[in-house]
Amino acid sequence: MSDTPLAIGIDFGGTTVKAGVLYRSNVISNAKPIETQNFQGADALVQEIARVIGELQKLHPNVAAIGVGVPGFVDFKTGLVHNVTNVEGWVRYPLKRRLEALTKLPVTAENDANCMAYAEWKRGSGRGVKNLVALTLGTGVGGGFVVNGQMVRGAKSLAGELGQASIDYQGRTGTYGNRGALEKYIGNVQIAETAVEAYAAAGETKTLEECSPAHLAKRAIRHDLIAQQVWNGVAEKLACALMNCCWLLNPEAIIIGGGVARAGTVLFVPLEQALQRQLSTPFKESLRILPARFGNEAGIIGAATLALEEAGYNVDD
Amino acid sequence: MSDTPLAIGIDFGGTTVKAGVLYRSNVISNAKPIETQNFQGADALVQEIARVIGELQKLHPNVAAIGVGVPGFVDFKTGLVHNVTNVEGWVRYPLKRRLEALTKLPVTAENDANCMAYAEWKRGSGRGVKNLVALTLGTGVGGGFVVNGQMVRGAKSLAGELGQASIDYQGRTGTYGNRGALEKYIGNVQIAETAVEAYAAAGETKTLEECSPAHLAKRAIRHDLIAQQVWNGVAEKLACALMNCCWLLNPEAIIIGGGVARAGTVLFVPLEQALQRQLSTPFKESLRILPARFGNEAGIIGAATLALEEAGYNVDD
Repeated sequence: MSDTPLAIGIDFGGTTVKAGVLYRSNVISNAKPIETQNFQGADALVQEIARVIGELQKLHPNVAAIGVGVPGFVDFKTGLVHNVTNVEGWVRYPLKRRLEALTKLPVTAENDANCMAYAEWKRGSGRGVKNLVALTLGTGVGGGFVVNGQMVRGAKSLAGELGQASIDYQGRTGTYGNRGALEKYIGNVQIAETAVEAYAAAGETKTLEECSPAHLAKRAIRHDLIAQQVWNGVAEKLACALMNCCWLLNPEAIIIGGGVARAGTVLFVPLEQALQRQLSTPFKESLRILPARFGNEAGIIGAATLALEEAGYNVDD
Repeated sequence: MSDTPLAIGIDFGGTTVKAGVLYRSNVISNAKPIETQNFQGADALVQEIARVIGELQKLHPNVAAIGVGVPGFVDFKTGLVHNVTNVEGWVRYPLKRRLEALTKLPVTAENDANCMAYAEWKRGSGRGVKNLVALTLGTGVGGGFVVNGQMVRGAKSLAGELGQASIDYQGRTGTYGNRGALEKYIGNVQIAETAVEAYAAAGETKTLEECSPAHLAKRAIRHDLIAQQVWNGVAEKLACALMNCCWLLNPEAIIIGGGVARAGTVLFVPLEQALQRQLSTPFKESLRILPARFGNEAGIIGAATLALEEAGYNVDD
């Protein structure tokens, strides 16, 4: 074990910040999660993260690098965080520079969905794939792409924002004025809202909580027609965005993770059907739709793996 | 000139097949166009193409490679043409193999929009750009992408089909069952049809010919409100597809060519506005919208340049 370097992955979320120590594909040690909202401003939170890293280093002194997955727009090259969704005080914050100063270790900062994509590509369902679309379905919709065996980052390392892509040029307005943003249709809350309305239209009163994706999935499996219709609608909208990824990037695999993906067949079956209906043969022939290997730990695993690779270690083991 | 190799580019279209000899960025010799529909089946047409290549070689004996831009799905790696839009008899046709057998020269076959993208990237408006979206607006809508300084081809070299991507998950049905296919809204014919309807609604009778993009652009410049509205609608729909490319790929530049792009400001101004309204700041900061450098010759230039590069020559001159 001493030959294989360890890395710390940080999964920065709107509710909690989780940190773990990665050895190959396994998180071998977890820190107690930090409550994000207990810390006012970016600097206070980063100091707490540095403290937690210090605690983990006491257990594992041979940590070689730190990776942070950030729920927002991050310039991967410079480690500058442009903004963080749902957390105040994070505007144009030099995360890499500040955390490196505090920890004296090399730090890599990357969008959280790109970290998930990276985890699946290097350690999970997408190993060995040269052209890959990975997405994570939860409160929001995030994406990460691999093209020609490389992560797609783009001009300012901002690529992969599948949740902001449009499925309707006249549709719902997204966070950035973007009409038809996918996230505004199939985020956690939007699915629940759609279901509440569908039940109400059928004369049934249900709360948002009763219509959470987890509850809806259970009901759909038990042949609740309204729940099934809601999932068919989610599949139709998701298929539109994924079909676009196929026409544009012609991937070998689409990997789907995140809480909403746990719905399983009630989502995946109509999704595959909708893609089959809307792609030409050569695009379909080589395409696989795969569930993600990693669940809650995908962010930690991806951020830590990326940090190791950026620090010059071979992670294709 | 003898040091710089020549290549022949073939621009295979539904109406004509054009061939030219490329020296650096210039087409120095053109063959008489072949009427596509005069030849029944792929083999007959390919034999005629080989004959025309032979004629060009009499004038320029030092041709090193042949590139063909094909209006359909082509597997770049194998040179297999899956199908050609609007030309019968082209299904799973081994174009590269057959044309190499006839000409004894290395042949490269590539999608025509990818050839256009390649021409602009290597010789035109996109020189030196590492992340690029190129599109061509005409009868259909084609695209080609550069990511991390490489062409995006995907699993079966089919990537870049921007015209098939959806702008409305419940929209018009495309050629492959794909709901909301961009091409079904802003192809040449669709623009004219939209305009005929808009004039009719205002009590004016106009023919499709009178509503061609070229005529519509002239009228819009002369402050014809209906023509301007039609172009605003084209811009809105195109912006949706290009915004998606930005969210997904974060390009430094979008290059727009093809006949419809000649509309100029009546298209480009509302297009830029619609993109400005629907992208977050860091995505916009580094983005340039550029007209293509090459017009009708883009296909020949791109196919020939690509063929030279595939044959091992340096084309970054």
